[in-house]
Amino acid sequence: MADLRIISADDHLQEARDLWEKRVPASLRDEAPHLIDLPDGGHGWALPNGTTRPLGLDVMAGRSYEDYKASGVDWDEIRPGCYDPHARLSDMDIDGVHATVLYPNVGLFGFNDLRHDLAMACIRAYNDHLSEFCATDENRLIGVALTPALDPESAVSEIERVGKLPGIRGALLPVFPGENSWWGDPEFEPLWAAAQANGLSISFHIGPPRGLAGETGKALRSRPGGTEAVINLLPMSTAEALATMLWSGVFDRYPELKVISVESGIGWLGYFRERANEVYERHRHWAHTDLKEEPGNYFGRNIFATFESDAAGVQMRHLVGVETILWSSDYPHSDTTWPHSRENIDKHFKDAPDEDKRKIVFDNAARVYGIS
Amino acid sequence: MADLRIISADDHLQEARDLWEKRVPASLRDEAPHLIDLPDGGHGWALPNGTTRPLGLDVMAGRSYEDYKASGVDWDEIRPGCYDPHARLSDMDIDGVHATVLYPNVGLFGFNDLRHDLAMACIRAYNDHLSEFCATDENRLIGVALTPALDPESAVSEIERVGKLPGIRGALLPVFPGENSWWGDPEFEPLWAAAQANGLSISFHIGPPRGLAGETGKALRSRPGGTEAVINLLPMSTAEALATMLWSGVFDRYPELKVISVESGIGWLGYFRERANEVYERHRHWAHTDLKEEPGNYFGRNIFATFESDAAGVQMRHLVGVETILWSSDYPHSDTTWPHSRENIDKHFKDAPDEDKRKIVFDNAARVYGIS
Repeated sequence: MADLRIISADDHLQEARDLWEKRVPASLRDEAPHLIDLPDGGHGWALPNGTTRPLGLDVMAGRSYEDYKASGVDWDEIRPGCYDPHARLSDMDIDGVHATVLYPNVGLFGFNDLRHDLAMACIRAYNDHLSEFCATDENRLIGVALTPALDPESAVSEIERVGKLPGIRGALLPVFPGENSWWGDPEFEPLWAAAQANGLSISFHIGPPRGLAGETGKALRSRPGGTEAVINLLPMSTAEALATMLWSGVFDRYPELKVISVESGIGWLGYFRERANEVYERHRHWAHTDLKEEPGNYFGRNIFATFESDAAGVQMRHLVGVETILWSSDYPHSDTTWPHSRENIDKHFKDAPDEDKRKIVFDNAARVYGIS
Repeated sequence: MADLRIISADDHLQEARDLWEKRVPASLRDEAPHLIDLPDGGHGWALPNGTTRPLGLDVMAGRSYEDYKASGVDWDEIRPGCYDPHARLSDMDIDGVHATVLYPNVGLFGFNDLRHDLAMACIRAYNDHLSEFCATDENRLIGVALTPALDPESAVSEIERVGKLPGIRGALLPVFPGENSWWGDPEFEPLWAAAQANGLSISFHIGPPRGLAGETGKALRSRPGGTEAVINLLPMSTAEALATMLWSGVFDRYPELKVISVESGIGWLGYFRERANEVYERHRHWAHTDLKEEPGNYFGRNIFATFESDAAGVQMRHLVGVETILWSSDYPHSDTTWPHSRENIDKHFKDAPDEDKRKIVFDNAARVYGIS
């Protein structure tokens, strides 16, 4: 087991406290995210859309569950591995993790509700920072860049720009593009073309699904049990993006494109894949389905998914496709397995052959991200 | 196997062609649903909201997949078992099915977008018809009544009314109640109280989830691959209702209440249950969760789900809970297993012990619906 190399396919970088102040044009500096002291204690990020994101559940690595805090955490209380690349590499060594795939904290849900110039400035500043962070050790620190979902042209221009930056190997998109569109729409074809041409995978990181995002979602989450209900529902939020890209034939037109459902777990995905094949068998005649192959065949070739704790999913890995699954630690979020990742892997794979385990904890991610 | 008694926990009744014309008050007759000749051939239902629902995928029992038609079907081409209770009992005998739980076709998505008096008249007419249909053989024909989701008072009054009708043992609600509420909200408590007091289970039959319903959903479904994508996504649409009722403590306050996720499949539900337990373990401290027990314990006692074709789900039945699962045939819809239900069951349960099979194809449904 000590010899087993592992890649965590979903971790997070806590943005440096001066990231945006330092990097956005002077004229936008006041509007960009900045770290503030919160009235009730601890630090938080004042965001351009007027909301505050406290330092809290995003930076829980190393705490006991009883000590989890949604807010009130001071910058100096968090592990330096959250924001410092050298400290991160040390924390990965403690946990026996060879390489990590990095997503944002503050920038996780993009800046897509902002004015165009501000959004682009915030996104580019993050991506430049990410590239420098990953350049510390490009073999172990893998960056997935923020992608503006403001309009297809902006997305393409940033995909082409980050495609040339050191350490960037993927592009992150929200789980749905806007109220009146979905990712399977023809208007997004240029994104898939640009991602494929630049050798970048596309990631959909879980978030509130369509209908529970925005103001509606905020009101609903405030009801009794609403927080827990939404956390319970989040993992399946990527289903829409996978379904609409799959059925609209994106993977026939861009056969090298790789899409990753991030932090979604995999326990529902075996069902989703089986259902896709059933829909194809029963309904393709009257629906005039235009796919080159049975939907299940795109899993493990074009469609991938990460999990950190999912006994159901590992048990039914052959239904998901062993080649589809990427293990992850989710450091430093509240769901993280750090520093017990090896125990977590042992527990999940105690009844699985070594070959399957190796694919899921290393080979599949190595293939998606070109890690040697 | 021939000795095995089976209950199909999700089938459909095709409403009689004169159902509403015969039963709604004269002043509303012109506005009520009625069967019409469609311009391109076949029959369809002209609905009060101005749309037309063709006779098609709802009445495919007995056809080959190549012969499935979304429209253009003539009333005389469909099996009388769709609408005639005696013919239905004969079709059940052909398929070796002892009892059936009946949902509507035309009325499936309720009449909740209609004017209040018209909605109530249409719903009551359906429920009276359903009761008479089931009275033909109350032990084999189990009715789940339409419930108005217009407002909690209307729902309660109809639940109390149908609770006294012969043959009615459940109440059907849409997967979400409205744009700004969900089923876990306190305003719906009187529904759960009335359902429990009247010995009725609550069913959520799959439909377009929040965000893909209404006009948005219609526009999105018309995109390339949109139809198939939505069919692929439908089964998980009940997740929101289950999550919000569970986490808001409905089952602690109404411990006898039984909720059924209908036609949702079960393959994603093991993951959903495992995730619920994980959320409870990790997040209950800071989220101040108010539940008497671990969420997984409510499965098989308060939460149930039906499937008709779901190898993934049966394989992971212990994660879903063997007591949670109800087999179904979905007669006469396009997804039906009729007349091959016994082969379908053999295939799903070839590696499962007889005890598990018996629970899933008979005992659990018998317990939920009080079938002896």
